[in-house]
Amino acid sequence: MAELTDARRVMGRCDILGAISEEPGCLTRRFATPAMGEANRVVVGWMRDAGMTVRQDNVGNLIGRYEARDPDAKTLLLGSHLDTVRDAGKYDGPLGVLVALALIERLHARGERLPFAVEVVAFADEEGLRYHTAYLGSQALTGTFDPAQLSRQDEDGVVMDEAIRAFGGDPMAIGREKRDPDTVLAYCEVHIEQGLVLDHRNLPVGVVSTIMGQSRFTVAFVGQAGHAGTVPMALRHDALCAAAEFILMAEEMARQGVGLVATVGQLDVGPGASNVIPGRAALSLDVRHIDNTVRERTSVALHKKAIEIGARRGVIVEWRQVQGSTTIACAPEINAILSRAIESLGYEVLSLPSGAGHDAVVMSTLAPVAMLFVRCKGGISHNPAESVAVEDVAVALDVLEEFVRRWGRAIVAEQG
Amino acid sequence: MAELTDARRVMGRCDILGAISEEPGCLTRRFATPAMGEANRVVVGWMRDAGMTVRQDNVGNLIGRYEARDPDAKTLLLGSHLDTVRDAGKYDGPLGVLVALALIERLHARGERLPFAVEVVAFADEEGLRYHTAYLGSQALTGTFDPAQLSRQDEDGVVMDEAIRAFGGDPMAIGREKRDPDTVLAYCEVHIEQGLVLDHRNLPVGVVSTIMGQSRFTVAFVGQAGHAGTVPMALRHDALCAAAEFILMAEEMARQGVGLVATVGQLDVGPGASNVIPGRAALSLDVRHIDNTVRERTSVALHKKAIEIGARRGVIVEWRQVQGSTTIACAPEINAILSRAIESLGYEVLSLPSGAGHDAVVMSTLAPVAMLFVRCKGGISHNPAESVAVEDVAVALDVLEEFVRRWGRAIVAEQG
Repeated sequence: MAELTDARRVMGRCDILGAISEEPGCLTRRFATPAMGEANRVVVGWMRDAGMTVRQDNVGNLIGRYEARDPDAKTLLLGSHLDTVRDAGKYDGPLGVLVALALIERLHARGERLPFAVEVVAFADEEGLRYHTAYLGSQALTGTFDPAQLSRQDEDGVVMDEAIRAFGGDPMAIGREKRDPDTVLAYCEVHIEQGLVLDHRNLPVGVVSTIMGQSRFTVAFVGQAGHAGTVPMALRHDALCAAAEFILMAEEMARQGVGLVATVGQLDVGPGASNVIPGRAALSLDVRHIDNTVRERTSVALHKKAIEIGARRGVIVEWRQVQGSTTIACAPEINAILSRAIESLGYEVLSLPSGAGHDAVVMSTLAPVAMLFVRCKGGISHNPAESVAVEDVAVALDVLEEFVRRWGRAIVAEQG
Repeated sequence: MAELTDARRVMGRCDILGAISEEPGCLTRRFATPAMGEANRVVVGWMRDAGMTVRQDNVGNLIGRYEARDPDAKTLLLGSHLDTVRDAGKYDGPLGVLVALALIERLHARGERLPFAVEVVAFADEEGLRYHTAYLGSQALTGTFDPAQLSRQDEDGVVMDEAIRAFGGDPMAIGREKRDPDTVLAYCEVHIEQGLVLDHRNLPVGVVSTIMGQSRFTVAFVGQAGHAGTVPMALRHDALCAAAEFILMAEEMARQGVGLVATVGQLDVGPGASNVIPGRAALSLDVRHIDNTVRERTSVALHKKAIEIGARRGVIVEWRQVQGSTTIACAPEINAILSRAIESLGYEVLSLPSGAGHDAVVMSTLAPVAMLFVRCKGGISHNPAESVAVEDVAVALDVLEEFVRRWGRAIVAEQG
């Protein structure tokens, strides 16, 4: 059984961050909001106490740096994100930041330096809740931030450019946050699994093999609004009925595929009165599969189905892809070190794919990436019932420590 | 061909009221909002110019009174409503107020008094958009206003009690608006058909036989929120998929019944993010049929289906009836006078049921009621494309004038 003191501190900090929310009674912390600012301020304090120099970059990422022995050494980036979905759990994101921070605390307590610098990055936007565009934080670090995004508006009409300025950043300087690939050793992220594999296999942690590609669409059905009492059923062009048919079609198609998931998470109905036939129903569609071909084939098939449904019902279909990522592989050479670290601590090594997207997807354009998954109860995530065991957090922290030590020794051996 | 000058003025006034909205670019005028206040102020001016004394009552109804020859005579109530649905057409409601007003203008121009007083009532809330409770205006006049409604909140959290006070009313005095049934001759309303019958029969107006009963429910499906990328399809309890199945079930059941309509006009999804499986989907259900038994049987059957869907999917169903009205008959003796008025002007008399609810439903608890429907293009209503021909409005106005004259003569003959 791992020593629990440090893991308990991590858990306590997840509770503290979990209480910093935009909404009373539930956890919602969107990009560049006052709640995010509050979370960043709290984490800054912890980072400084752990001997790190800290800066908030121009997109709002918080970056704590712990120097190497050698000032010219490369940098290992660790971290995860501090933004959340709506009505979120406490661990998706913050756990990865806080386990990395706890590792630095251990090093700092012993005055120990590694043969590489370590930066703990708390990304500002991974979920993409506020502007419907995920990974703003890692886009900045990898130089893939598209300035066109700055004119997007949130649901209150606040433009991203203004939001970033209000958060203390300079939107025009985001391009300068791009890291030089030659200075970056790798990006490694600890994250809850958000699935059931580790729970079913009764393992505290696992090594991520690949991160599943995703396709996200907005699909609008445009029919004809009308009076709920006077338009006979046969003469209706009900946009919501068309959307309902599409939702069940997406569910059915995903059920028939192995490892395929399709989700409609948002649906807006207009005009939206109980006595008015819906004239418009706009929904989000999220399709994921480890095999890019399967994902793309499914997306195309669903688009075709939407058009069929629309044609049959006299309803127009507006189909737009809003996001897409291909499946990426984590770096085998880093996974090998991670696996040996897990083994050396006496745990079985399990390699598993990630169904969730992560900043590691974007970071893979800059440097090799790896991820360590931590078991979460029942696989429940994006839900206040998200739950992680302190014992598993202790294992994750010990594995991370063993991992950086082993990698450090390997680097020294190479150089020697 | 009827003379069009007065009808053109009515149409112009529909345009003026149609431009008084809470939202730029579309017509939305909810109960007790500044837009309603603006509409009332404009109508007050027209009423005064037509020789009426005007008051705004404590719920916000605007009432213009045109006295009878005899101060002890009963009162004929004419009118309709000035509130609208969201993104409404210009004629649903205002047309009935403005045709009644045009009738009084004709009488006033000739200095003519009838053997009964006439009041033109512009009801403050028929659609129920703001507080999800229709007929607040006619409830006040009939003494059926339940003060418990005063604590309801609109979507911005404004309590009805405050809204009424801000609109100039005294919520505690609404009970005193109740009319003495002995002083009321009848309530008669001109309204667009909102259906296709008159359009298909090529008739300008029709006499309403009955007003269909309605049942309105809110139905919430409560499943389990979760991560869109990690929860396999087989393990999901997707609230929106359950709702989608229910929506199609309601559509299918209504399609199978003759004259039966079922509509889901509102649907809210929570948490409502593209990468989160919906944990909650709450919808409105509106069921209507001329036969109360069919309506009730359908509602019960749909409730049963919702429970079946929920049980099969591991999703909880919350079912609540929020409104209900039985089918009411318009007064045959008034319809007889109305029919003779139509005939005498050379038009075919067509009697037809109303699928839409109207203030006449509530007013029928106080006095006999009648309704004159005016053809609307394509039956389109609750939609900005709502359209009425000036020629048909001219017929409606002439019919209304002929109707009050005939009734007046009949009363004088009786008394004589």
